[in-house]
Amino acid sequence: MSLYHSIFLFSLFFFPTKANDDIRKFEKSSHQLLDYIIKGNGSGIAYEWLSNLVDEFGPRHLGSENLDKAIESVVHGLINDGFDNVHTEEVPDLPKWVRGDDVVEMIEPRVQRLKALAIDGCPPADLTAEAVVLTDFQELKDHNVSGKIVVFAQRWIGYSKTLKYRRAAYTVQELGAVGVLVKSIAPNSLATPHTGSGARGSRIPALTITTEEADMLKRMSNRGKKIVIRLSVKSHPDGTVSSRNILFEIRGSERPSEVVLLSAHIDSWDVGQGALDDGGGCAAMWNALFALKQLADSNPVFVPKRTIRVAFWTAEEQGLIGARYYYESHKNDSHERFVFASETDQGAFKPLNWFSSLEFAGTKAQKRRLNEIVEIINKYGIPLSILINDRQGDVQPWADEGIPSVNYLPDRGREYYFRYHHTDADYMNAFEDGDLEYTAAIFAVVAHIVANTEDVL
Amino acid sequence: MSLYHSIFLFSLFFFPTKANDDIRKFEKSSHQLLDYIIKGNGSGIAYEWLSNLVDEFGPRHLGSENLDKAIESVVHGLINDGFDNVHTEEVPDLPKWVRGDDVVEMIEPRVQRLKALAIDGCPPADLTAEAVVLTDFQELKDHNVSGKIVVFAQRWIGYSKTLKYRRAAYTVQELGAVGVLVKSIAPNSLATPHTGSGARGSRIPALTITTEEADMLKRMSNRGKKIVIRLSVKSHPDGTVSSRNILFEIRGSERPSEVVLLSAHIDSWDVGQGALDDGGGCAAMWNALFALKQLADSNPVFVPKRTIRVAFWTAEEQGLIGARYYYESHKNDSHERFVFASETDQGAFKPLNWFSSLEFAGTKAQKRRLNEIVEIINKYGIPLSILINDRQGDVQPWADEGIPSVNYLPDRGREYYFRYHHTDADYMNAFEDGDLEYTAAIFAVVAHIVANTEDVL
Repeated sequence: MSLYHSIFLFSLFFFPTKANDDIRKFEKSSHQLLDYIIKGNGSGIAYEWLSNLVDEFGPRHLGSENLDKAIESVVHGLINDGFDNVHTEEVPDLPKWVRGDDVVEMIEPRVQRLKALAIDGCPPADLTAEAVVLTDFQELKDHNVSGKIVVFAQRWIGYSKTLKYRRAAYTVQELGAVGVLVKSIAPNSLATPHTGSGARGSRIPALTITTEEADMLKRMSNRGKKIVIRLSVKSHPDGTVSSRNILFEIRGSERPSEVVLLSAHIDSWDVGQGALDDGGGCAAMWNALFALKQLADSNPVFVPKRTIRVAFWTAEEQGLIGARYYYESHKNDSHERFVFASETDQGAFKPLNWFSSLEFAGTKAQKRRLNEIVEIINKYGIPLSILINDRQGDVQPWADEGIPSVNYLPDRGREYYFRYHHTDADYMNAFEDGDLEYTAAIFAVVAHIVANTEDVL
Repeated sequence: MSLYHSIFLFSLFFFPTKANDDIRKFEKSSHQLLDYIIKGNGSGIAYEWLSNLVDEFGPRHLGSENLDKAIESVVHGLINDGFDNVHTEEVPDLPKWVRGDDVVEMIEPRVQRLKALAIDGCPPADLTAEAVVLTDFQELKDHNVSGKIVVFAQRWIGYSKTLKYRRAAYTVQELGAVGVLVKSIAPNSLATPHTGSGARGSRIPALTITTEEADMLKRMSNRGKKIVIRLSVKSHPDGTVSSRNILFEIRGSERPSEVVLLSAHIDSWDVGQGALDDGGGCAAMWNALFALKQLADSNPVFVPKRTIRVAFWTAEEQGLIGARYYYESHKNDSHERFVFASETDQGAFKPLNWFSSLEFAGTKAQKRRLNEIVEIINKYGIPLSILINDRQGDVQPWADEGIPSVNYLPDRGREYYFRYHHTDADYMNAFEDGDLEYTAAIFAVVAHIVANTEDVL
């Protein structure tokens, strides 16, 4: 409970003793908004929106026809919804990579095909070599891996700390290794490997394998068995392509040049449906803005004074490229400025407990004001805290510029999310009732308040 | 909590007011046994035994060379262990079926290969047909399925109640359906289909698909989409084979003709490693008997008066065939009789809470005596209850004859187990620390007491 208590005490400490009416006055409208999205006519629509998208187009991998068609379809829908300024912006020169029919086969001590997914950028290969099974980069200094396939069967210690093994190709190729197999970056995998980025420009083939089979290889190695593996990799880089960011908004009624940014990414890996990563984020952000638009039709309190813009980035999976390109393209725009940025890309889940947070980058004063918004959400019965985090994913450039930024991290974003992440299991089934609604409702409230206060956050 | 309270009150009600020293006197030796297996030199050996088996041979499907080799290797080990009467008994005329490279592909409304596993007995096929997606057998009366592929996307309502859908081929072929795809009998599948029995003798192809893709097809169907599926099935029945049950024991010192039977099954499906189902049961039963043997070497209290026999059945997956054949072969044996029978085949897991039970078939008097044994286990800090259950799996014939019988059902056997069951994910990773030890320890105590009391259970 220590983390929880820390959050609680921290919140108390920074909580202003005097209520700030500039934010508090939005409590009633915020709770109306929460009601509408969670329980009212606004509920269920995000699930419909998302399942239609993912069932119709399947995964939306950069360079695929699926992604282009999905973007076209989404834009068409947004225009029909009546949003302002619906458009796409081209992002050029993106690194295309296509998955082939790759085979990873253990041929000693016995023959077994291993379940594997090539890592983004993995070059083609056709080779057979003895495997060296390691659990840590540190062990490289005790093993000669020249001419070998290195297998990393590292421990899962959370995503951010385990992720480096998916990039192991860059390290082991310098030591003469001819290939690398990496245990999926996941707490467990139920026989389903997890792909991801990490081998662009690598000279050696790099693939992920399942947690089960990585651990099996480790046990065999511990017993002194000689392990020989055959790799037949057809996956390959395929030049460059362009893709498109999607933008839409409700134009501010009084201060349209001040922009509140909500975002998620429209592209996915080429496995599963891209429902969790990050179709759910897109669906929730769409739902948030759509609900505000619906309510604004009959109640002017929901008409934002500032512009609320939603961005669906492309080429996120290849390294946050779409978002950064947008930032660079617009950072010198003189006609508008961003006052808030956010991203939802670690699970559009309903917060079930106080480990759910808005991961925040900004000043202490901004955090105090955000805390007042969060308290309005808490009063509705939703557990949500604020944790300071300088890492802001797609909206990192905005955060680096000093614009207050938020990444949504519900409790299930910390571990549950990574069972499905970058796998064939990334289907609608990852979501449970209320997940998309609660995510949408939280961001609708944040955007509603940040777009309407006298002072910016 | 109502189930828990019911169990608790039920236990109180049947608990004898006067302690029965015939059982109570084994408390000290039982706790020594628990210590030895869980914390002492006897710990860790089941995991080693099992991981060696499954890593060396892979899955042990009936009719495969793997199974024959694994049986040979296990028997060799048991002889080295020094058990009494180690032998195998042939089980003839078993239905062999081999999995081929099967393809299930949705070709309308878009092209997507679906993850599928043919159901045991599935005949070969090469056909394309429109799909009718149903969630319940009841819906068959409202749909003409003649010439169609029926997809069942039923709800998971626990294994025993959902299982009937894996046998749907027999029903829908009579209605003219040309094939059937069944959502995996599992709470969720992380993109990993679950195979099993259910199509032996079927005239139409029958395969399981993942929960994710079954639900996707249902959503598409709800939207009125026409779904067309192509089946190319190479799996096929392949005559009959024989296999072997494995038997070993510690011969009773005073009443060798009275036999206490512990059992699990050595065969598995052809996917995963067969670690969970039921390698773990075998490893735990081996560990139980091995620990008794080790302790008996230095302490005569652990020498059983009655014979404790362990059976590793074959051809369980095809319908409990090995166990029944053994029963039929020996039911008229005049030189010995069974006084207790048990099976562990729903997860050799450490009990984590009071939903862990010995599922018991027998008389009330026998249950009272078993309860006294369980109380000795409870006193050690292990949550374990007794629930009455006439369904006894492999030891059903013994139960039907009136021999007190037990099936082990730890809390995680009710749902967690079915994530891995009959899948490519059935690897060692399904087990956590202590799982095999606690299972072994519980059965070691039960066998130790039942083999040594004055009166049989």
